[in-house]
Amino acid sequence: MSFNTFGHMFRFTTWGESHGPALGTVVDGCPPGLALNEGLIQPFLDARRPGQSRFTTQRQEPDQVKILSGVFEGRTTGTPISLMIENVDQRSKDYGDVAKAYRPGHADYAYDAKYGFRDYRGGGRSSARETAARVAAGAVARLVIPEVSVLGWVSAIGGDAIDPANFDAAEITRNPFFCPDAKAAARWEALVDNARKAGSSLGAVVECTATGVPAGWGAPLYAKLDAELAHAMMGINAVKGVEIGDGFAAAANTGEGNADPMRPGAKAPEFLANHAGGIAGGISTGQPVHVRVAFKPTSSILTPVPTITREGEATELFTKGRHDPCVGIRGVPVVEAMMALVLADQKLMHRAQCG
Amino acid sequence: MSFNTFGHMFRFTTWGESHGPALGTVVDGCPPGLALNEGLIQPFLDARRPGQSRFTTQRQEPDQVKILSGVFEGRTTGTPISLMIENVDQRSKDYGDVAKAYRPGHADYAYDAKYGFRDYRGGGRSSARETAARVAAGAVARLVIPEVSVLGWVSAIGGDAIDPANFDAAEITRNPFFCPDAKAAARWEALVDNARKAGSSLGAVVECTATGVPAGWGAPLYAKLDAELAHAMMGINAVKGVEIGDGFAAAANTGEGNADPMRPGAKAPEFLANHAGGIAGGISTGQPVHVRVAFKPTSSILTPVPTITREGEATELFTKGRHDPCVGIRGVPVVEAMMALVLADQKLMHRAQCG
Amino acid sequence: MSFNTFGHMFRFTTWGESHGPALGTVVDGCPPGLALNEGLIQPFLDARRPGQSRFTTQRQEPDQVKILSGVFEGRTTGTPISLMIENVDQRSKDYGDVAKAYRPGHADYAYDAKYGFRDYRGGGRSSARETAARVAAGAVARLVIPEVSVLGWVSAIGGDAIDPANFDAAEITRNPFFCPDAKAAARWEALVDNARKAGSSLGAVVECTATGVPAGWGAPLYAKLDAELAHAMMGINAVKGVEIGDGFAAAANTGEGNADPMRPGAKAPEFLANHAGGIAGGISTGQPVHVRVAFKPTSSILTPVPTITREGEATELFTKGRHDPCVGIRGVPVVEAMMALVLADQKLMHRAQCG
Amino acid sequence: MSFNTFGHMFRFTTWGESHGPALGTVVDGCPPGLALNEGLIQPFLDARRPGQSRFTTQRQEPDQVKILSGVFEGRTTGTPISLMIENVDQRSKDYGDVAKAYRPGHADYAYDAKYGFRDYRGGGRSSARETAARVAAGAVARLVIPEVSVLGWVSAIGGDAIDPANFDAAEITRNPFFCPDAKAAARWEALVDNARKAGSSLGAVVECTATGVPAGWGAPLYAKLDAELAHAMMGINAVKGVEIGDGFAAAANTGEGNADPMRPGAKAPEFLANHAGGIAGGISTGQPVHVRVAFKPTSSILTPVPTITREGEATELFTKGRHDPCVGIRGVPVVEAMMALVLADQKLMHRAQCG
Repeated sequence: MSFNTFGHMFRFTTWGESHGPALGTVVDGCPPGLALNEGLIQPFLDARRPGQSRFTTQRQEPDQVKILSGVFEGRTTGTPISLMIENVDQRSKDYGDVAKAYRPGHADYAYDAKYGFRDYRGGGRSSARETAARVAAGAVARLVIPEVSVLGWVSAIGGDAIDPANFDAAEITRNPFFCPDAKAAARWEALVDNARKAGSSLGAVVECTATGVPAGWGAPLYAKLDAELAHAMMGINAVKGVEIGDGFAAAANTGEGNADPMRPGAKAPEFLANHAGGIAGGISTGQPVHVRVAFKPTSSILTPVPTITREGEATELFTKGRHDPCVGIRGVPVVEAMMALVLADQKLMHRAQCG
Repeated sequence: MSFNTFGHMFRFTTWGESHGPALGTVVDGCPPGLALNEGLIQPFLDARRPGQSRFTTQRQEPDQVKILSGVFEGRTTGTPISLMIENVDQRSKDYGDVAKAYRPGHADYAYDAKYGFRDYRGGGRSSARETAARVAAGAVARLVIPEVSVLGWVSAIGGDAIDPANFDAAEITRNPFFCPDAKAAARWEALVDNARKAGSSLGAVVECTATGVPAGWGAPLYAKLDAELAHAMMGINAVKGVEIGDGFAAAANTGEGNADPMRPGAKAPEFLANHAGGIAGGISTGQPVHVRVAFKPTSSILTPVPTITREGEATELFTKGRHDPCVGIRGVPVVEAMMALVLADQKLMHRAQCG
Repeated sequence: MSFNTFGHMFRFTTWGESHGPALGTVVDGCPPGLALNEGLIQPFLDARRPGQSRFTTQRQEPDQVKILSGVFEGRTTGTPISLMIENVDQRSKDYGDVAKAYRPGHADYAYDAKYGFRDYRGGGRSSARETAARVAAGAVARLVIPEVSVLGWVSAIGGDAIDPANFDAAEITRNPFFCPDAKAAARWEALVDNARKAGSSLGAVVECTATGVPAGWGAPLYAKLDAELAHAMMGINAVKGVEIGDGFAAAANTGEGNADPMRPGAKAPEFLANHAGGIAGGISTGQPVHVRVAFKPTSSILTPVPTITREGEATELFTKGRHDPCVGIRGVPVVEAMMALVLADQKLMHRAQCG
Repeated sequence: MSFNTFGHMFRFTTWGESHGPALGTVVDGCPPGLALNEGLIQPFLDARRPGQSRFTTQRQEPDQVKILSGVFEGRTTGTPISLMIENVDQRSKDYGDVAKAYRPGHADYAYDAKYGFRDYRGGGRSSARETAARVAAGAVARLVIPEVSVLGWVSAIGGDAIDPANFDAAEITRNPFFCPDAKAAARWEALVDNARKAGSSLGAVVECTATGVPAGWGAPLYAKLDAELAHAMMGINAVKGVEIGDGFAAAANTGEGNADPMRPGAKAPEFLANHAGGIAGGISTGQPVHVRVAFKPTSSILTPVPTITREGEATELFTKGRHDPCVGIRGVPVVEAMMALVLADQKLMHRAQCG
């Protein structure tokens, strides 16, 4: 879990820039014998793919994945799985502005400060295009945890939250917002449209639940399941906050109000609440694992913002290009992928130590 | 960063249980030649030490640290620094209840599910006593980053938040709550006292700022500074949420409202806002690094809660023992320590790659 | 340094099988700003490339490397460098024999025992073709250590050793054996030719020296420079032994005979001998780092050898296909690459800890 | 496997110097539920302990191990096992000579070059006393692999080798040399005595075999079983060479001579030879895993050797103090420990990936 590699036993390394010839990932440590082909990965990439509605960036990328290694006769061999996605629609626009000045809120200045220079085309390595590689790796991770069902959705855009009473999982794929509340989806259409037309952008909250995780996954003390999830989620572009279970609401609660009582159950104990989000002491309890993730509004807006040039002089920048008015929307498949990747890793780690 | 080790280049491994003979940490990768002795570590342990006011657990632990290796003639040698803290006040109480049944909200059930059995005395390895080792390691980390100043405080207890307008850093050490707002501290005295007397508990929010971090620390893409901080903080006992900069508030904002404009500065660019919390693209920007951490109320309360026995039968448990009515309070030195540990690690990683 | 990743700070991950569409490596942690293009990598691949003389396998692979990421305007950006080499000459021969039975001395049986099945085409992942990826990564590593000069050669084939008195570095590239002794090269021509014609194979010893390594590289205690080199070399296909400095000869020596006396030198101490191979206590001394590596004869021979089928029945196998009569010869560029990779990693690690 | 930590899933970190108050290790990732107490570790430490015969250093260290964590009611809990050994016989001698000048062949100069200064008392961290911690960790590792039997011995001292025809495992514990050949043991008595009296020292070869390792352990490609063993062995103080199976002899052999034919066996295939040392393609074959390790003669001799002072001036040093005339002898328990540690780690890694 350093630099461009994530995971302990089930690991993936990503590579590639927004405007390079391709991007990809090498998935290592995958158990052998799992059925795998491009068709099992592509649907997840399609869900994340840009250009599918007017609410996401209009860059047209087919995001076709190719398996280059690690699969033989349709099954994983236990050796590294190399997945590649070619970049197709790198528009040869003029990057002069971005090359010379720092887009505020983007990684431009920080990259320059760290590395001395940067690939400024489309954000280079800091572009959210890299998350396509995570989604591809996540599709493989799902095969490692067939007992687990991972479901993500958007629960708020620009401060307008869904009504939990309206939650309908089937609704999530019926609108372009991954929204489980049909009424909220209707409101968001106007909300996001207005932001898009105004050249503005909106933040969002993404939630994700993993059901079927058995009690006992998690590796104390510094690879705790919740710590790993926090790491995974905070590492996604534009994410600024992570909650497990009740999160910050728990900080305003009392011990009585936050209790998750237990009673005997058929196969496993039954919990009468899940304030903990399915994790206690860094280890899964058998309840659904639940995470909430805050995506900031993208800093790519049409309003000019004061900034400086590479030479340190004052200037202003606004972002032309093609951008998501609400990056949180396409964050859903990424959050799901990271959830699957963390759980696959923890499953293997648990198996290593506890047999 | 796996199991009981944290960090990449500046690493520490902790060991020890609540009621074992001792606990400790091995700090590895520390640069050589730094002045170090017990006196430079002890003040941080003293700040975390229990039994100092009626608002924390009454367990009396001197938490005296001993340096067992890695220091010669008062300076670090570059070899592992072994730090040990003996447990003194393990009260020989009857643990029959806890041994036989699972305390809801604690790690008891999850540990049993994972390992098949557990050291039930005081929570064993899952006890917050382990954080003493982190605080000791954090004191060493501070020596690695003398350019950085780390400051933590409690910003809310049980939902009662400080008024930012009253923020006074000097106030933090003047009250038993690490509270920078004298008025809030006065309110909290009654609030926490009532909870303590009622055998209840309260959640809290801890904040921490690191000033002096130069632009350029952070290691994309899966050891991003913000991801590492999220990992570090979510791995602290009782933590359920982490925010960098504006966190979840950013998710309700627009791109314009969330912008951090820049203008030329004397030595480095000047930022006109810090919604980002000092981190862009996973790399420090030179602004103060700011994190918010949600601590749940401890599950150790006097109100009986339904639970099950190890044999799976229904029962009820309430927690006798000595416990913190608000564990978030003593979380401040731990959050500060983890901030210092992450930054020291990132500094060395940056130096490795970028010279 | 786990599974398919090698290194701590300067790391590379390889992927690909002998008969897949391609193989490659992702180099991570490379310092930014280094001049890099395909032309700086290709010569090293050409040196390792098969089919260049009758003394190596006749498989024709151009081994053209493509840089897919991590380089912008001719310089490394500090982000992952993805290198890909397409497989061209995967002969569509009948692998029926190898699919059904285990080639003795090869990884066939062990892979099946571990993974339950295997990609049997050309050895799959266990093929020495993977070493092309290491050689490509090694070319990048050399850019990280411009102060170091790495030189490898074959010092013995089939037990016939060079005469150190004849050592001439310029000779190494003048014969197809990487042999620094012109007389030995002449003898080996007949020796290897006979083995080739007889369908036999020969073992070899490869040596490698790194000059210019400053004193102080190496990371005690379990990332010692010599331990890392041993790991790197023993991980090359067909290697069965590694020596640093005098190696096993030291085990037959006395303390007096093995001493490396020192005297004052111009810039650094001068050593009067180098029995230690440039490493003391796991740390470089400033003398040339010297390693000797034993390559076994390839198990691919025309003489039938008793073995068993996947179903456990007795059979015999001999190896058709195209194979190296002496795999040690093409081991030279691989040993050099691993030397460069270990040193680049140690340089960065040293810089991290010791500034 | 970096700095002072070894292993991937079953990991240990060591700390401590020759003349500090104590040394120790933290064993992490150990499976829960294994019976463990000091009595199961002490015999291995006793075997390594100095001062037991006139053929080893006369430093008197009881090397009593204390378990400080990770064990509850006599069983491992799955949490870190902290083991501590106090230093007792740090003779308060005058270290003036060693402080001011570099002992040739020792780590003195390299440590100073790396860290700027060093703990010169008894070699500090570079002392072979650290290996006591490895032996303690190795005792725990043996519990993880009850199916495996690890046996080490000395096969040559100062170039005088045992006769394999005389090999008798029962003999190993009957003489002070861990020698399986009674006749060789008798010869070595005079050999080592003469070296000791002359203030000289002798190199040695240690061999070690692990029987019972099932086929399938090993983690390609950079955590191969043989590569990990090479790393483990080359990291032991004074080791300069490692061979798996036939090692360098294989480099002088032909494919026919080096073949390990197979035939059907009762439970597993039967091998008709073991040139490979039980490892093919980096994965165990089910045959005994066999390693040979070259220990140099200690550089601590009474003959003065030219060297330089810290200020760079010429001087001479000879080693007073108490030293082993043949450090290879006490290397046997260390080699055994490292074999057990590598195998325990590989077992857990195999279980993680392959279930």
